[in-house]
Parts: sequence; structure tokens; C-alpha cells
Amino acid sequence: MSYELYYWPGLPGRGEFIRLAFEEAGTKYKDIALDEDAVEMIEKITGETRHPSFAPPFLKHGDVVIGQVAAILHYLGRRLDLCPRDEAQALWCHQIQLTIADMVAEAHDTHHPVSLSDYYEDQKTEAHKRAKNFREERIPKFFDWFETILKRNTKGPEFLVGNTISYADLSLFHLHEGLRYAFPHAMTGIDRSHKLVTAHCKNVMARPRIKAYLESDRRQDFSEDGIFRHYPALDKRAA
Amino acid sequence: MSYELYYWPGLPGRGEFIRLAFEEAGTKYKDIALDEDAVEMIEKITGETRHPSFAPPFLKHGDVVIGQVAAILHYLGRRLDLCPRDEAQALWCHQIQLTIADMVAEAHDTHHPVSLSDYYEDQKTEAHKRAKNFREERIPKFFDWFETILKRNTKGPEFLVGNTISYADLSLFHLHEGLRYAFPHAMTGIDRSHKLVTAHCKNVMARPRIKAYLESDRRQDFSEDGIFRHYPALDKRAA
Repeated sequence: MSYELYYWPGLPGRGEFIRLAFEEAGTKYKDIALDEDAVEMIEKITGETRHPSFAPPFLKHGDVVIGQVAAILHYLGRRLDLCPRDEAQALWCHQIQLTIADMVAEAHDTHHPVSLSDYYEDQKTEAHKRAKNFREERIPKFFDWFETILKRNTKGPEFLVGNTISYADLSLFHLHEGLRYAFPHAMTGIDRSHKLVTAHCKNVMARPRIKAYLESDRRQDFSEDGIFRHYPALDKRAA
Repeated sequence: MSYELYYWPGLPGRGEFIRLAFEEAGTKYKDIALDEDAVEMIEKITGETRHPSFAPPFLKHGDVVIGQVAAILHYLGRRLDLCPRDEAQALWCHQIQLTIADMVAEAHDTHHPVSLSDYYEDQKTEAHKRAKNFREERIPKFFDWFETILKRNTKGPEFLVGNTISYADLSLFHLHEGLRYAFPHAMTGIDRSHKLVTAHCKNVMARPRIKAYLESDRRQDFSEDGIFRHYPALDKRAA
């Protein structure tokens, strides 16, 4: 039974959290975003299935159709051996993923603070305010939390949960990459004061399958069409 | 082993989604929000546990501490008999909950579009824009989705998943109540065009234990301190 990932073409986006799990596991998957009929295929399934996703990405695995990144990873975790078997530990892994998802949504809202359907250019003034708050309060708060949970891991700070890689580690790595793309100035300061997170993300990046993936054609570049966008005006040093 | 719910005192907030599950199940739980030392108790556990929640609510059940509303409900679902046993169906229930959580966050952002830490009064202009987009595009999009999934339920539109109550049903009811409190004008139109959702929420409200809870002292009122706030200016008819 094959895995099919349905997501918009042309950007890493939220689909990337799922791709990284498959890549680390070395598990074959069909990435619909690479198909020229991607949009039609997404619409066809959404229009027909009894379990339509509110938005992509969604995963099709045989008869099962699952949406919401964290739910997809929860489903894949035990199948790809990317989360603990123990219920409480698996739930902790899931809880971290949900918190990452919250931060991803906030990162998106820095360039779309008042209307999802309008352009960034039409909400620049509001975006500057939201980005300032994100850089000065939200990034530190989230990264303090990531640093704390690495520090409190009784198995050491190499992984978020226990002493093996989980999908949450891959997702934190991608979140960090996205934020470094979007807010290079702000993230320089954050990295300096969050040593465990920085080391953690470097370790993930150096994993053989992740490294190979990042260097492959399958990895799509960040751009100003995605969640993490680099608008220099939003990365300004606080006045 | 007792259930303890940790959440800020004085408002229904995100804690309410958990309370409703306990109330429908008829399961005893300690609601820390009703304790006069609630804030200190939240800070104490957050400061000590290996699994701190990024923010309340969190649940303590013996040694297990779980944060994130959807993760808490996923944990409680099988214990309180409020979600299907089948994996794919349980995950569908969870996916609906995650989509409800996304909408709750968007509802919150209508009054805090640029800064979580500033007052609504300091971001009124931006709030008017975001609320307009929320009323005109986001509420209809989410409610069209809820209506669709009720319609596509092969067991009929009384419940979101299968033919028995789940935590997702309770959460949709509470989301609907919150939106009716915050946006009474906008929701009148939405209710008229989303008959299955409206009937669904009425059914949940009429369930004996939910009805008894809503009439009890345990139920806290919506207010302008919470997620769902009624600011008449944000509920204006589109110009």
C-alpha cells in the first residue's frame, strides 16, 4: 500500500514536515506536488472523500485519507518508526508537534496579519507590527520552550523525546530553517542564546538521509510564495 | 487516579473544550481554575515537569502531564468513551478537533491581530480589518467544511464521526456558542445557511449532562477577557 502526499506544488510549505519524515525513514512516497495535475488531484479527492481535509497537505494511504500535519505525523510516526511506542511518550512527541504547528501559523501571520486572501503588499503596515511582536516576543518565547524541553529530556539534549530521532525533531529542524530564511537577522540573536536548539538542528541537518534529501532535486526552495517569507522590512532590528 | 485540569481562572477559554468532555462523560475532575491558587499551581507544575505545556490548558493524570487541547482530548477520548475505537475513525475525530483548534486561534486573532501582548484597544484598526476577513471569508469557509463533513457522514448528520457523540461534537458546539457570542450578527446569517451544523449544535446543547452543566455554577460566562469577545464594532455588517 503506497503513501501519497497531496500538497500544493512549488513550495516546501506545510507538506515539508511530512516529506522530511518519509526521507528520514527512507520510505517511498509519491509526492503529488511534483505532478503537473497536482491541483486537480487535490480537488478531486477533497470533493469525493468522506474525510476531506480543510486544507492540504493530506495523506492517502490505501483507503485512509488524513489531513492536518500533526495528525498525519501521528499516523506515520509508529509506521515509520519516528515516534516512541509508549503512549505517554508518543503523546509528548505529538504535543511538541502541535506547538510547532502553532508557531508555524504565527510565522505565516507575520506577512498576512489581517487577511489571508489579500497580498502581503496590501497589509504591509500591519505586517510590520505583527512581525515586530513575533521577533521580539513570540520567537523568544517559543525558543525558550524548545530549549527548556531539550534541557529537561532525561536522556540528554540531542533529541526532543527520548534518545532517538522522532518526527518532532525533523519538524523543529524545518521550522528553524524556515525562520532562518525569513528572519536571518533576528535568528542570529536567537541562535546565540539557544545553544541546545542550534546544536539539535545542526545534528538533524547532518543526518545522512536528510543531508542527501536537502541536496536533491526533491527539496524545494523557500520563497515568497510560502509560509516562511523573507521580506527584509519584517526582519528589522527593533527601533 | 484523578484528573486535574490546569487552566487560567475566570473564563471558559481553551479549558472549556476539556471541561465539556468530562461533563458529557460524567467523569469527576478537579478544575484548578476554581482554586484560588490556580496561577501558582500552573506555574509550579510548568516549572517542574519534564513535559511542560507551552501554555495552559494542561491535564495531569497521575504521572502524565499533557498540554495542547487536541492532544488532551485524544488522550481522554478513549478513556471517557468519547471517540471511536477504530484507528482511522479516531484519527478523523482528532483531525476535526485540530481544524476546530485552527478556527479558535483565528477567532482569537480577530481582536489581537498584531500583538498578543497588547490590548485590543491598541490594535482596533487592524482588528476591524481582520474581523471583516474572518466574518466574510473564514467563518463561511470553516462552516462550509463542517456542513460538508456532517453531510458526508455515512451514519447521518447527527454526529461528526459515526453515530455516537465524540469530543469533536462537544468542541464544535462550544466553538459555535463562542462565535454566536462574539459575532451575533454574522452568525445569524451563517446559521441560516448551515442547517446541519445548527441542528447538530442544538442537539449537543440539549444532551442532559451538557444542559445540566450549562445551567450550573461550574460553567463560566463568555467575556471580553477570553478567546471569544463581543466587540460590536467587529461584528458589523459588511459595508
